[in-house]
Amino acid sequence: MENLQPNIALLLLSLGVLLGAAKMLGELAQRLHQPAVLGELLAGVLLGPTVLGSITPEFNAFLFPGTGANAVALNTITSLAVTLFLMVAGLEVDLSNVWRKGWVGLKVGVASVVIPFAAGFTVACYVPQFFGLQPDISPLIFALFLAIAMSISALPVIVKTLRDMNLYRSDFGVVVVSAAIFNDLVGWIIFAVVLSLLDHDTIGHGITLTVVLALAFVLLVFTVGRRLIHWTLPYVQAYTWWPGGEIGFVVILTLMGASFTEWIGIHVIFGAFFIGMAVGDSPHLRNRTRYILDQFVSSIFSPIFFASIGLKVNFIVHFNGPLVVIVLLIACACKLVGGALGAKWGRMGNRQALAVGFAMNSRGAMEIILGLLALERGLIHQELFVALVITAMVTSMLSGPALQVILRPGRKARLEDLFRSKLFLPNLRAASIKEAIEEMSAAAGRVIQGELNPRSVSRTTRVPEDVACTAGGSSLVLLTAETANLSRPLIVAGISAQGVGLSATENRRAQMLFLILSPEDDPGTQGSLAAELSLLYRDPLMLEQTLQARGFTEFLALIRTSTVYLKKE
Amino acid sequence: MENLQPNIALLLLSLGVLLGAAKMLGELAQRLHQPAVLGELLAGVLLGPTVLGSITPEFNAFLFPGTGANAVALNTITSLAVTLFLMVAGLEVDLSNVWRKGWVGLKVGVASVVIPFAAGFTVACYVPQFFGLQPDISPLIFALFLAIAMSISALPVIVKTLRDMNLYRSDFGVVVVSAAIFNDLVGWIIFAVVLSLLDHDTIGHGITLTVVLALAFVLLVFTVGRRLIHWTLPYVQAYTWWPGGEIGFVVILTLMGASFTEWIGIHVIFGAFFIGMAVGDSPHLRNRTRYILDQFVSSIFSPIFFASIGLKVNFIVHFNGPLVVIVLLIACACKLVGGALGAKWGRMGNRQALAVGFAMNSRGAMEIILGLLALERGLIHQELFVALVITAMVTSMLSGPALQVILRPGRKARLEDLFRSKLFLPNLRAASIKEAIEEMSAAAGRVIQGELNPRSVSRTTRVPEDVACTAGGSSLVLLTAETANLSRPLIVAGISAQGVGLSATENRRAQMLFLILSPEDDPGTQGSLAAELSLLYRDPLMLEQTLQARGFTEFLALIRTSTVYLKKE
Repeated sequence: MENLQPNIALLLLSLGVLLGAAKMLGELAQRLHQPAVLGELLAGVLLGPTVLGSITPEFNAFLFPGTGANAVALNTITSLAVTLFLMVAGLEVDLSNVWRKGWVGLKVGVASVVIPFAAGFTVACYVPQFFGLQPDISPLIFALFLAIAMSISALPVIVKTLRDMNLYRSDFGVVVVSAAIFNDLVGWIIFAVVLSLLDHDTIGHGITLTVVLALAFVLLVFTVGRRLIHWTLPYVQAYTWWPGGEIGFVVILTLMGASFTEWIGIHVIFGAFFIGMAVGDSPHLRNRTRYILDQFVSSIFSPIFFASIGLKVNFIVHFNGPLVVIVLLIACACKLVGGALGAKWGRMGNRQALAVGFAMNSRGAMEIILGLLALERGLIHQELFVALVITAMVTSMLSGPALQVILRPGRKARLEDLFRSKLFLPNLRAASIKEAIEEMSAAAGRVIQGELNPRSVSRTTRVPEDVACTAGGSSLVLLTAETANLSRPLIVAGISAQGVGLSATENRRAQMLFLILSPEDDPGTQGSLAAELSLLYRDPLMLEQTLQARGFTEFLALIRTSTVYLKKE
Repeated sequence: MENLQPNIALLLLSLGVLLGAAKMLGELAQRLHQPAVLGELLAGVLLGPTVLGSITPEFNAFLFPGTGANAVALNTITSLAVTLFLMVAGLEVDLSNVWRKGWVGLKVGVASVVIPFAAGFTVACYVPQFFGLQPDISPLIFALFLAIAMSISALPVIVKTLRDMNLYRSDFGVVVVSAAIFNDLVGWIIFAVVLSLLDHDTIGHGITLTVVLALAFVLLVFTVGRRLIHWTLPYVQAYTWWPGGEIGFVVILTLMGASFTEWIGIHVIFGAFFIGMAVGDSPHLRNRTRYILDQFVSSIFSPIFFASIGLKVNFIVHFNGPLVVIVLLIACACKLVGGALGAKWGRMGNRQALAVGFAMNSRGAMEIILGLLALERGLIHQELFVALVITAMVTSMLSGPALQVILRPGRKARLEDLFRSKLFLPNLRAASIKEAIEEMSAAAGRVIQGELNPRSVSRTTRVPEDVACTAGGSSLVLLTAETANLSRPLIVAGISAQGVGLSATENRRAQMLFLILSPEDDPGTQGSLAAELSLLYRDPLMLEQTLQARGFTEFLALIRTSTVYLKKE
């Protein structure tokens, strides 16, 4: 074989374009309160055969070649990316959750696996041709696959949705997460068995070995492996470079585990996911390691991986309307019924039970990976793959809005979302605190006309009695006011170069003023926003930097990137 | 061309083995106060043709195949790795440093480039055959390359050495770093020109374009590009996911820049390094982004890259003694003379000037990359490559010990290095604070016999008057004592389950006790150690976890991984 060399300039260009498009559309999706993976996949669809390929096939083939050394190179990067993505997904699984709400979660987990599994298996047995069973595939294996595809759920998406809605730590959230963990564990283990069955033509020929090895691997990782990792971690922390040693340790284990599962004939993702879970389960694993791995992999490798999926298939040519509708309907109906029945079985209320159904319905990343593997192994055709990807996307998109309607959790007001460029007043004209309040209230009144009466705001605003001063002499005042007709909280930020006089008698002045406006019926919000702002400005450097911010964007950037947020992650 | 697929199981195994060996030997090197890159390279030498390949060539060819899809895959990963490594190296360059000590740094920079450059150029012109000039290479280009190879220095290694010795923020450190930045900038720009010359057989044919493009790229990145990045960063921070958006932004820019420099005929590393520098120069770039990129890349990609270099060449077969000695001698002599003359020119003292020479002499990672590129382009043969790698290693190893001897900076006592397993007493028997001090002093006396008189320690130990209690009721006491004959500070850590009574009258008890022993002639150390311990234990969770630590390793792991260390990075 000749000694091929990939064209590195082209490879980096492909990666740069793919990552760039994926990040941009991923950000857009998140703006619209959708999972990032939706936008990332769409980036691949736009750059792949579906759109770019049908406009300029030559350019598409140049940028993302299907054969030759550069195809191998792209394939290598995406394989590494999916390995690291599954590792991080595994690290995020908190097995202790499963035990906390044990029984209810288990009941939801069982019901939301069994019902979709049975339905998927049954329809695939009765009308396999409709789902595109190919002649060289065993109908049993095909039915098992469709059963898993109907019953899988996407832990990363579910966790994200619950966090966004401030439900993650609630009893509801714990039930859903523990059920989803059960769901994923069972689903992936059965899928591992299905894949090992697939590699062998006839049952009995080598296949027992693969199944036994796969199950032995899972068992070993969660017993001996888990304990060994837990025992080793303190040594890594105490005697190697920190945190590089621990990061390396986790990645090396993942590479080895992934290599093993691929070698025995299942797939890299199993090794990566299970090793990730075993490592993440150890209380010794430090948050910093988790954070660095998560941030780097989620920012770089996951977008590349999900965008690359869009490159593989033409989503228009292989779009089969009836198939998409049927798959989507079965998937949603069974998961909703399964989740809700499980929740009722665990004695939850009707409304909560319905919400559990919708929460469990998110299939996001995991369904896509499942479909991709099946497609690559020739188990399903491209039309079913497209239907599964669309199902994954639609179910994930439904979940958030449905929970919002059913539970009305009231999205948590995040400090960083409450600022507006028109409510950032970098040049306050006021000389006294009273004038400053009037100036800031007037600005708020202009921005939300009708909802706010500037006069009543300035009358009811509370001025704190003591004001902290930084070493540099600058000081900050947090003003608060409740307002009758406001629908959501708002913060006016004002900066005064000369400072605003705080009282007639003393000579103290404030350079930075925040006016927190909150609805009258929501008194808790105000306190928590004030506390968060105080925490943020406990660091005197933060105040100095804010006073120097040139324009609203730099101000918002400071607020959003402030290190206080580290503690939340 | 047929549709090749890499064997993913084998690829991940290769990566896992390579990373595992690189991390282990890298850790070992750091233990011996040597740069990690030394161990990482050695891992490749052991796994490559030099050692493993000469023992079992079949296994070596299986694990690291030289042809086929898996060779392409490994090549892809190492290309990505070197791109990201240079990006991080660029981010680390603090251009503002250059201006702070401007003139002295510039003088050292100029002298330590010009003298080795002239020497390298001269010898390569006079005895090109000795250095292995091949007939198809232009003598001028070859001489230029050897000139650069003699004059380059390794900023990452220099920064690391200075940090270890607590010299990084000193005037000495600033001079050395700014000189090294100048050194690297000039060296890499000339090397870019050399590479663009190399791609063209005869001068005039297309070459002007490459040189012009390369210089235009550098110019553009440092003028328009730098400003544009600085202007864009707040938008990225204010309106995209944090910190994922910023991480993605930096990596996308790097991929694009690296792709461009590779495309115009120089190499990915230039784009990655210069883009990294331009991004890192913006005060808007947040430390968190820098930290995540640095940690992930330094822990995973750098070790893989440097180990992969060891795989490329047989270091024993291509070891040419006289060549190694001559290259090493010229490199060291010229750099020492250049650095020292530059420092004298900048009016530094003799001792400092000599130290500057040794500090500038580190060539580490950069020389290796330089040699690798030249080898891959066929500019040098393997013997010169081996000589350059050995020169890189030896000069980097010399630097630390030489600075230690010349400047005697007194390595900073790091808190984490002062604990000993025999000085960790998890079951104090003492009932009173007086008995506890005796028990802890006796333990210290047993460990360092001769240096310490337990009785005098317990007599002079100071007990603080007020002791902070955590919410859980546990409390911690910091005891301090100066000791006549001690050569370096030590900390005894004692834990008492029932608590040690603090005074006869009150009923307060301490569960955690630290006895800080420091030499009498070094009073500052004691205060800074006590302050660091207080800071560490300001978090009540830290105390609870310490009291639960099972054994010395878990205790040390807690100390080393505590989040206080974040602030230092």
